[in-house]
Amino acid sequence: MNSRIIYDILEKLKAGSIDVDAAMKALKNLPFLEMEYAKLDLGRQLRNGFPEVVYGEGKAPDHIAEIAFQLKSHDQSVLITRLSPSAFEIISKRCPFLDYREIARCAVWKAADEDLGRGLILVVSAGTSDLPVAGEAAVTAEIMGNRVRQINDIGVAGLHRLLAHRDEIRSAEVIVAVAGMEGALPRVISGLVDKPVIAVPTSVGYGASFKGLAALLGMLNSCASGVTVVNIDNGFGAGYSAALINRKHTS
Amino acid sequence: MNSRIIYDILEKLKAGSIDVDAAMKALKNLPFLEMEYAKLDLGRQLRNGFPEVVYGEGKAPDHIAEIAFQLKSHDQSVLITRLSPSAFEIISKRCPFLDYREIARCAVWKAADEDLGRGLILVVSAGTSDLPVAGEAAVTAEIMGNRVRQINDIGVAGLHRLLAHRDEIRSAEVIVAVAGMEGALPRVISGLVDKPVIAVPTSVGYGASFKGLAALLGMLNSCASGVTVVNIDNGFGAGYSAALINRKHTS
Amino acid sequence: MNSRIIYDILEKLKAGSIDVDAAMKALKNLPFLEMEYAKLDLGRQLRNGFPEVVYGEGKAPDHIAEIAFQLKSHDQSVLITRLSPSAFEIISKRCPFLDYREIARCAVWKAADEDLGRGLILVVSAGTSDLPVAGEAAVTAEIMGNRVRQINDIGVAGLHRLLAHRDEIRSAEVIVAVAGMEGALPRVISGLVDKPVIAVPTSVGYGASFKGLAALLGMLNSCASGVTVVNIDNGFGAGYSAALINRKHTS
Amino acid sequence: MNSRIIYDILEKLKAGSIDVDAAMKALKNLPFLEMEYAKLDLGRQLRNGFPEVVYGEGKAPDHIAEIAFQLKSHDQSVLITRLSPSAFEIISKRCPFLDYREIARCAVWKAADEDLGRGLILVVSAGTSDLPVAGEAAVTAEIMGNRVRQINDIGVAGLHRLLAHRDEIRSAEVIVAVAGMEGALPRVISGLVDKPVIAVPTSVGYGASFKGLAALLGMLNSCASGVTVVNIDNGFGAGYSAALINRKHTS
Amino acid sequence: MNSRIIYDILEKLKAGSIDVDAAMKALKNLPFLEMEYAKLDLGRQLRNGFPEVVYGEGKAPDHIAEIAFQLKSHDQSVLITRLSPSAFEIISKRCPFLDYREIARCAVWKAADEDLGRGLILVVSAGTSDLPVAGEAAVTAEIMGNRVRQINDIGVAGLHRLLAHRDEIRSAEVIVAVAGMEGALPRVISGLVDKPVIAVPTSVGYGASFKGLAALLGMLNSCASGVTVVNIDNGFGAGYSAALINRKHTS
Amino acid sequence: MNSRIIYDILEKLKAGSIDVDAAMKALKNLPFLEMEYAKLDLGRQLRNGFPEVVYGEGKAPDHIAEIAFQLKSHDQSVLITRLSPSAFEIISKRCPFLDYREIARCAVWKAADEDLGRGLILVVSAGTSDLPVAGEAAVTAEIMGNRVRQINDIGVAGLHRLLAHRDEIRSAEVIVAVAGMEGALPRVISGLVDKPVIAVPTSVGYGASFKGLAALLGMLNSCASGVTVVNIDNGFGAGYSAALINRKHTS
Amino acid sequence: MNSRIIYDILEKLKAGSIDVDAAMKALKNLPFLEMEYAKLDLGRQLRNGFPEVVYGEGKAPDHIAEIAFQLKSHDQSVLITRLSPSAFEIISKRCPFLDYREIARCAVWKAADEDLGRGLILVVSAGTSDLPVAGEAAVTAEIMGNRVRQINDIGVAGLHRLLAHRDEIRSAEVIVAVAGMEGALPRVISGLVDKPVIAVPTSVGYGASFKGLAALLGMLNSCASGVTVVNIDNGFGAGYSAALINRKHTS
Amino acid sequence: MNSRIIYDILEKLKAGSIDVDAAMKALKNLPFLEMEYAKLDLGRQLRNGFPEVVYGEGKAPDHIAEIAFQLKSHDQSVLITRLSPSAFEIISKRCPFLDYREIARCAVWKAADEDLGRGLILVVSAGTSDLPVAGEAAVTAEIMGNRVRQINDIGVAGLHRLLAHRDEIRSAEVIVAVAGMEGALPRVISGLVDKPVIAVPTSVGYGASFKGLAALLGMLNSCASGVTVVNIDNGFGAGYSAALINRKHTS
Repeated sequence: MNSRIIYDILEKLKAGSIDVDAAMKALKNLPFLEMEYAKLDLGRQLRNGFPEVVYGEGKAPDHIAEIAFQLKSHDQSVLITRLSPSAFEIISKRCPFLDYREIARCAVWKAADEDLGRGLILVVSAGTSDLPVAGEAAVTAEIMGNRVRQINDIGVAGLHRLLAHRDEIRSAEVIVAVAGMEGALPRVISGLVDKPVIAVPTSVGYGASFKGLAALLGMLNSCASGVTVVNIDNGFGAGYSAALINRKHTS
Repeated sequence: MNSRIIYDILEKLKAGSIDVDAAMKALKNLPFLEMEYAKLDLGRQLRNGFPEVVYGEGKAPDHIAEIAFQLKSHDQSVLITRLSPSAFEIISKRCPFLDYREIARCAVWKAADEDLGRGLILVVSAGTSDLPVAGEAAVTAEIMGNRVRQINDIGVAGLHRLLAHRDEIRSAEVIVAVAGMEGALPRVISGLVDKPVIAVPTSVGYGASFKGLAALLGMLNSCASGVTVVNIDNGFGAGYSAALINRKHTS
Repeated sequence: MNSRIIYDILEKLKAGSIDVDAAMKALKNLPFLEMEYAKLDLGRQLRNGFPEVVYGEGKAPDHIAEIAFQLKSHDQSVLITRLSPSAFEIISKRCPFLDYREIARCAVWKAADEDLGRGLILVVSAGTSDLPVAGEAAVTAEIMGNRVRQINDIGVAGLHRLLAHRDEIRSAEVIVAVAGMEGALPRVISGLVDKPVIAVPTSVGYGASFKGLAALLGMLNSCASGVTVVNIDNGFGAGYSAALINRKHTS
Repeated sequence: MNSRIIYDILEKLKAGSIDVDAAMKALKNLPFLEMEYAKLDLGRQLRNGFPEVVYGEGKAPDHIAEIAFQLKSHDQSVLITRLSPSAFEIISKRCPFLDYREIARCAVWKAADEDLGRGLILVVSAGTSDLPVAGEAAVTAEIMGNRVRQINDIGVAGLHRLLAHRDEIRSAEVIVAVAGMEGALPRVISGLVDKPVIAVPTSVGYGASFKGLAALLGMLNSCASGVTVVNIDNGFGAGYSAALINRKHTS
Repeated sequence: MNSRIIYDILEKLKAGSIDVDAAMKALKNLPFLEMEYAKLDLGRQLRNGFPEVVYGEGKAPDHIAEIAFQLKSHDQSVLITRLSPSAFEIISKRCPFLDYREIARCAVWKAADEDLGRGLILVVSAGTSDLPVAGEAAVTAEIMGNRVRQINDIGVAGLHRLLAHRDEIRSAEVIVAVAGMEGALPRVISGLVDKPVIAVPTSVGYGASFKGLAALLGMLNSCASGVTVVNIDNGFGAGYSAALINRKHTS
Repeated sequence: MNSRIIYDILEKLKAGSIDVDAAMKALKNLPFLEMEYAKLDLGRQLRNGFPEVVYGEGKAPDHIAEIAFQLKSHDQSVLITRLSPSAFEIISKRCPFLDYREIARCAVWKAADEDLGRGLILVVSAGTSDLPVAGEAAVTAEIMGNRVRQINDIGVAGLHRLLAHRDEIRSAEVIVAVAGMEGALPRVISGLVDKPVIAVPTSVGYGASFKGLAALLGMLNSCASGVTVVNIDNGFGAGYSAALINRKHTS
Repeated sequence: MNSRIIYDILEKLKAGSIDVDAAMKALKNLPFLEMEYAKLDLGRQLRNGFPEVVYGEGKAPDHIAEIAFQLKSHDQSVLITRLSPSAFEIISKRCPFLDYREIARCAVWKAADEDLGRGLILVVSAGTSDLPVAGEAAVTAEIMGNRVRQINDIGVAGLHRLLAHRDEIRSAEVIVAVAGMEGALPRVISGLVDKPVIAVPTSVGYGASFKGLAALLGMLNSCASGVTVVNIDNGFGAGYSAALINRKHTS
Repeated sequence: MNSRIIYDILEKLKAGSIDVDAAMKALKNLPFLEMEYAKLDLGRQLRNGFPEVVYGEGKAPDHIAEIAFQLKSHDQSVLITRLSPSAFEIISKRCPFLDYREIARCAVWKAADEDLGRGLILVVSAGTSDLPVAGEAAVTAEIMGNRVRQINDIGVAGLHRLLAHRDEIRSAEVIVAVAGMEGALPRVISGLVDKPVIAVPTSVGYGASFKGLAALLGMLNSCASGVTVVNIDNGFGAGYSAALINRKHTS
């Protein structure tokens, strides 16, 4: 795991280039970077294993750019979710290092390239309209240091398509299953494997889909078979949990 | 179709054993038999193709027995749904001709044995707790003059079980798919066939199944593929609609 | 039914113009046409009896046009639903063969003109604002090879208007009943006939109509009389199910 | 209207048998009779035109009996709603003057027999299970001094039955329409007449009827045509409002 | 009541200027005027006592103008609800006879000036944001031939304001009470009078007012005291029902 | 405030009768008394100002009795809410010091009699069925050391009754307003005073009261005028908050 | 407290500069200032302790400006909530005395600077998106004459941040806790203090947060520990109640 | 992992004691044991890693006993959830090997004692009423071959109690957090660790807890921080998923 800053401080201390008081202060200052419009929690990587993530929707591009810049300066990975292309354009001027994933609507910069996972994280989705959420899950897991693969458009209405991917599905360590409408995909998947399945309901659908409620309820009622659920459209949350589950023992 | 009473009246008229006025009156009297506690609609078989059906829950056994007796006297099939074993015991004393289907909680007597259907009606169900509702659908379709088969316990969590029945499923003319929890069965079935599928959500489940609401919403969101839905636990309605769909042209 | 492509392949094989391996490959390739932005399921017509249908809302006109073009090239009927006039204008440049139904907001091209139905499909609607949904149901049933008639503006608040159409209603093989507000139309219709009625709740109304929920609940509570229900505003699903029900035996 | 007690007090004053102070006190004492377990509002008949009504459910029979006894002692009509037969048995010992209406589950005593209404109040209901609520509405209107008629079992699924009563329906001054399930009856009725219709949803039904919610929403969506709605199962409220509407001008 | 057209036809017949067949045809033609985009129900005034009302929202100004023109040509009152000022501007060119009520967003033309009511209809409202709905109720009752008065801004949070109007409230024959938020006004009003109160919940409020649902539920729970309820924001329905209740006996 | 135990320990230490280690241990043991079936939080009085309260519903009488006994042994006040008379009978054998308030369904023992409040806490309720909840609020506030008064049966449907208590209402420091049905009482009260009002919705009512939801929503929509709300039927919570608000400064 | 106008009138009377009739009239005229578009309640400060507050959303800037001007002319504090910067710009031309708080979206003018509170009112919030609501609460309490402090960005997901403020939290007399998402902050805060906590759910969040409903329900379920709740996003209501609770005894 | 039966068959084959056909048949027969009332899925352990689990509620004790007996005969672990003590008493006669966990309401028999997990599974719960659900989760994880520890009664209202267990919480590999009411526990826990947290809402609570809905929504809104959710009261599902996550790599 990437926590170079802390190590740097400690090594400087050991090497005698700073004294205990200076190290103490450096470490104490770490957790929060007080910015004009936000407290940037630089200690989150140490405490929770991953840096703070920026939810882009409704935030000013200037502020996002500044946060991204600071994170990179402290050598922490950057993940900005729910970011529109037009906002990215502004941000990328200050942060040319950022990479934009259009379908997932995320901007990313990866601090290090280590593989932190025990196995493959597979993100499957039911319909083409579920792609942005599935993409967000995949990008999140990837930036967290995992090998990720995506299979799209394998809804339960076409079993032959789904079954054609059976081996690939079984090869994964964790599976994220994204679906709108009635949300049956995670249950069908969980019947094929003996691995944890994280279900993400999406707000895709109309009429009695009630903006994802039908899918959410459907998924909650599949919980008996190793399926757990995150909030509607919360691709990030699913990718994050998948990464926690897939993580190698560091000790 | 069984409408012997009307034919009897008309033949008596033709044969001269009654005059036009008497026939008129007999026919006019037909529609309703005024009983102390109910109006028995004897004309329903003529108008809607099937006799009146008795919803047993909350009705006094004596009243049910009298209605059943009158229906049989007029040579019309008898179907009593939601009937407890203890109520049946009382009723069967006055109506020994009735047959009780324990799992479906229905009492039946079939006026005639003609096959009125174009093909097979298949009733599939997801779990063992869906059996009463599936049974009600099957009994209803059967009493309405159809060949009916039931396949139970083929939920979508165990695809191999479901796929093992693929040929049987494809051989049906109409399919009734009964499921609680997240109600994914009808959608998966509809992907395998080119026949109408009637979905019945059941109130089986706990927590966020909300007494069948999760299954109902799930099924409504599967409507694009030839699935239509009836009310929660309404096995009778599904069997009835399946019978209407399956009916041969009489003209 | 139209499955000329498969027959062509098989006949080429029989005629010796291709060998078994080539036929095998051609058939295997059939099910999915991999396009840049979608998998076009060309095998759906074979498996489910009708070609893949395109839900137009939110899709790029260019992509829709390409899919429509491919479907026609494989001699499969084209149905694009929820299509705005402005999107159609763009699409029709690449696909001049498409016909636009303004009220129903559908674009269509019909591969063949056979009558596949056993009888008439009647689409009735309660108010003028229900017309787009009723139109979608009618167009869908028609493109699937059925004789279809529409009667509009016969809500239950004006019984005389509804009863004036009694004979026409009774002449249909399947009835699709479209209504918003309290959704009472299907139940009243089902009391007049002995044919299956498919109810479509619409999101028409205000206040406690809750975007179609009141109509949906009303219709689900009418299920006892041969009524089955599809999702709110799902005219396509109703027309599709009506077509499946009305279909002649091919064997 | 029956307000003899007040007149008695005033006449005693005029006749000189009591003085102004005593009259004042008697009148002031009127409004509330402080009982051990309740404040009996004897002034309600003066202020709102009808005496206080007793909601029987969950009250001790002894307390109900005492209230009924006091009301009759003050020459005010007695109406106890939601009263079980077993509770009535206890109450009738102390109050032998009370009359029990079994289906409506009400006990009544009528202070005077004047006809206070402008015309007929008609209570129509859709199914046999709606009878208790319809009965409560009818008894309430009757005890308030109105001519009342009930027509039962005329749901919208059997239009011919409903239309057979068209003249009777048109002869009423106010109509109370009681229905469960999808609650379409009031709207159909309101299309036949130019009189106010009060709709009462009942908790009859199962599955997605949600204990009367479906009927309530259906009725609220019929409001455009002269229909107003009361709470689920609130037969009393409907009868009460119907009586207010039907009342002759006293001035 | 205004039904001059029918009388004209009948008098022409009596006077010999048309024969029975012509009269027959004229009368038969009456009920519906087939327009390109709608069926105009001219017989509604005869059957239900008031002409057809036009719900303006979402209709093309041209169509509304034509309907209004036809209604006036047949000497029937015109009421167009939910009409924006900009739509009115277009309509008033073809229909200069129409009068626009800005707050109520209604356009009206009154066929005759008779007073059809037994007494005063009072429309009270709780807050200034309830004014459009209250206005719609008042205009509707007025155009239907009633004396109408409005009192605004007397919510229950300021009892002294409400009580200051006590005499005016008691002088009305029917009261329409309009309120958003928690909807307590109708119940408080009904405690002051012995006349029918029609409650109109409005969608005013935020957070847990849920677009009028809180007010609707509050009002339904006040039904015991002579209050009946119409749909959220349905000022028209309340005014219409108030007019029916207030109507003088014509026979 | 009653925190004698801690003081005892500290004084014993000061007096030399125990040493620091013993005091330490005594104080550490204080917060939780490990019982077989529960951790009794004896430190809550110190931390939050009042001892732990026992929610009686569903707990075994033996366990409750033991907890009550321990609390009293540590000289802390005892409050057991939602306690049935039959459970109290068992408990009172082991805890004869407990006093049972029947209507409020609470058992209490008060450790000290000091008046901790700045003024009067007034508990008002709308109907007789709201009494148990109002009682729970009153008992809670009283056991917490406040002067409490209750006024019952002053619903908003009878304004004259409510206004008769205007002075009493204005004399209170904090008001708890308890109401079911549409929950308008708190708003009306808050319009009369300049003191905080705590609203308690009750589950009293039927039909669309939805077990208190209508009252809850109504109250939340009254928040602008100094009203705050607690959970449905949560008399205890309201009394507790009222006590916190009313508390004298100790510093 | 600021009620100079009344005192002025009374002192003029005492001084003989006006007579009793003129004083009478002046006082009577006080309560409402009839403006063209509103009744300005100038007596509210006298009756409820604070002047009328203007809810800015959806009101015309001209009208708001006029009301603000009148309030200041009568020497009453001005608080306008939910005011956009663009509306403020217009208003400030007529009312240059107003001060705009951008984050809270409020405009204010304070009539007097007395400290009316017993202690500190603390407003804490969970996330940066909760700031507008927290700001509204703080501004409201401040304009009502209280010392107010705000602590932002201390959600329960980062306990160490929250606990770092423990002493500050414990020093407050009343706490307003603002949170969206799952709304856990108030419960955690209430476990740390023995002071009243007012919880404000915000509509921040997505998916199953249902625009604040999840937070609202969460907060209502924390009521046992001295927490009371106001409507979603109702910062004003929370600040207002906090001010009422914090107020010094004037008598 | 325990799959001895399959190995036995294969070894017999290898050893020549059975021939290929017999082995084939034995393996084919494996998946389902057709019992009179159920299909026992003996192949589930092979496919999904754990044997079939028996949901005890509503099943006949005789049937449960037979299933348990068969599972043990095939050397597969037995887990029966939602089992009442009285049902266990009957079952234990036929299955004396079963062990009953009273609080968790589960009966268990463990086929083997291997430790299949990578680390500790910790089950934490908020209140004493959450114990049955927490117990079910713990028993499930244990029978699946994991080391499990339970910490109870650490709700977020008492942070000091929760923080006292910080080290224990951090030592776990997977955490199951069980809570009713507002369900804040999982979010607070997830802020302390970098491990996956599975949240289980319970139906504990009253009023606006809506049988666990408030807790469910609260938990879904905490998903951003590595929390995933299962259905209300679904302790089994949480334990099962925790076991899948904790499982050692076998390959």
